[in-house]
Amino acid sequence: MSTLVVGSVAYDSLETPFGKAPRILGGSASYISLTASYFTSPVRLVGVVGNDFNPEDIELFKSKNIDLEGLQVDNSGKTFFWAGKYHFDMNSRDTLDTQLNVFEKFNPIIPNSYKESDFVCLGNIEPGLQRKVLDQVKRPRLVICDTMNFWISGAKDSLMETLKLVDVLIINDSEARELSGEHHLVRAADKIKTMGPKILIIKKGEHGALLFTETGLFSVPAFPVEDIFDPTGAGDTFLGGFVGWLDRSQDISDANLRRAVVFGSVMASYCVEKFGPERLKNLTDEEIYKRYNAFMELSNIPAV
Amino acid sequence: MSTLVVGSVAYDSLETPFGKAPRILGGSASYISLTASYFTSPVRLVGVVGNDFNPEDIELFKSKNIDLEGLQVDNSGKTFFWAGKYHFDMNSRDTLDTQLNVFEKFNPIIPNSYKESDFVCLGNIEPGLQRKVLDQVKRPRLVICDTMNFWISGAKDSLMETLKLVDVLIINDSEARELSGEHHLVRAADKIKTMGPKILIIKKGEHGALLFTETGLFSVPAFPVEDIFDPTGAGDTFLGGFVGWLDRSQDISDANLRRAVVFGSVMASYCVEKFGPERLKNLTDEEIYKRYNAFMELSNIPAV
Repeated sequence: MSTLVVGSVAYDSLETPFGKAPRILGGSASYISLTASYFTSPVRLVGVVGNDFNPEDIELFKSKNIDLEGLQVDNSGKTFFWAGKYHFDMNSRDTLDTQLNVFEKFNPIIPNSYKESDFVCLGNIEPGLQRKVLDQVKRPRLVICDTMNFWISGAKDSLMETLKLVDVLIINDSEARELSGEHHLVRAADKIKTMGPKILIIKKGEHGALLFTETGLFSVPAFPVEDIFDPTGAGDTFLGGFVGWLDRSQDISDANLRRAVVFGSVMASYCVEKFGPERLKNLTDEEIYKRYNAFMELSNIPAV
Repeated sequence: MSTLVVGSVAYDSLETPFGKAPRILGGSASYISLTASYFTSPVRLVGVVGNDFNPEDIELFKSKNIDLEGLQVDNSGKTFFWAGKYHFDMNSRDTLDTQLNVFEKFNPIIPNSYKESDFVCLGNIEPGLQRKVLDQVKRPRLVICDTMNFWISGAKDSLMETLKLVDVLIINDSEARELSGEHHLVRAADKIKTMGPKILIIKKGEHGALLFTETGLFSVPAFPVEDIFDPTGAGDTFLGGFVGWLDRSQDISDANLRRAVVFGSVMASYCVEKFGPERLKNLTDEEIYKRYNAFMELSNIPAV
């Protein structure tokens, strides 16, 4: 069991209709690693932080058995910082501030001890950097990749090169539409699967997620969380639950990919209950499995 | 087994990105009755048509064993006519023409032979007329009701009176939000259930549907139809499949309400494959059960 996670490590200042959280731990690699750590060990983190990184956050990673050999500390500047404000419906947000800081020059270097990993999880970073990671590792069982509109519109050629090397692409519905040029998600998926990924997951926010494999389609609803407190990191948390379960079970069959999608949904549904990664700090196995069963109950169609 | 259906019978002229269909059979009562007829008999239709109603459409209803004693023929005018054009994404449409004609003075009169019906299905008509139907019948096992934004904004008080008498309300997500004043659908459902209906179904178009019962929540995805040819009547078709299955099975347990929601989704997924009610004319039981099983496969979460 081993999962390699590459992405951003950041501080976020968040504002939602329910309150404010200044300078809390954020970034895709943080959410993915913390979440995956509930399922598997070691999670190997590759990222960069600056001279302002809080030792308490280092301790948090260590307490979850996250391997930090690949976490670079760049003392020439500060950690990536983002500030955002969510609107009342939680589906839209305004970016108030973005300071790339040391992340601007991020060059992912994979320690030797990481080079043989079962699962490689490429968080949402520049597609060329994602390829640079893959150049350095032994072919893993699965390469799982996230991306975003920013790269789809701004670095399409580079992204297309990366997609050729990806086994599982996890994006949201608007990204799938933009990447494929198709409005209907089934058509979008057909087209994206010709770009490289054999497996595609399309996240639809409050409407759940779709899993397209080589043989079929699976639809999982979102858990009906009544009070979405803060959606920050929900997509990365989904990714962490997905890869964490695959690594724990060492099974990439279609049925088990479904389970991984549900564990991703479970973890995301917990994540949004509190600010930032707060809820991911002290979940229990019992809570995780209880919600998995709640998803089964929510979706269960009785036979006729 | 007996289902009473009240609603509009109409002619629709439809235009979608795939073509045009002038003056084809439409109206909520037509879609509900035709669909329910696949599951139960007799379906008792109450509605009104004008002097231009096509004998072939009478024959279509009769061929499906639909009881037409309650279908009024008003020779003083023409049948309700609607013309609409769908946009490329099929989620929005423009009304090009509406001629209420004889439907404007519609006064639902329930024949004696209809007065004891197991299920009463109130299609989307003026809420006062819906109550007038209930005044004339013996208390059925379930009163199932549809409505629309037009009545929610324009006849709220009357609609609230009707809702007190309704067991199952079936509306779409924007209607649920408008009726409750709540954006989040779980909160919206909680509020609507205080208005009368013990059971609420919220249709979400391409995102499926939610069933709220007294004890739980069920989420069904939409079937991933790649080519939505014409969405006209899909909501009424859902209603017809829902009530038809309940009447056939005579079981209103939570598990069977789930099955009814899936049969509603099955029938709606077929309806959109061709213009108007065309696809509802010659479905087979085999096709219906095959798609039910496809829904089970689509939603199936394997245990861990």
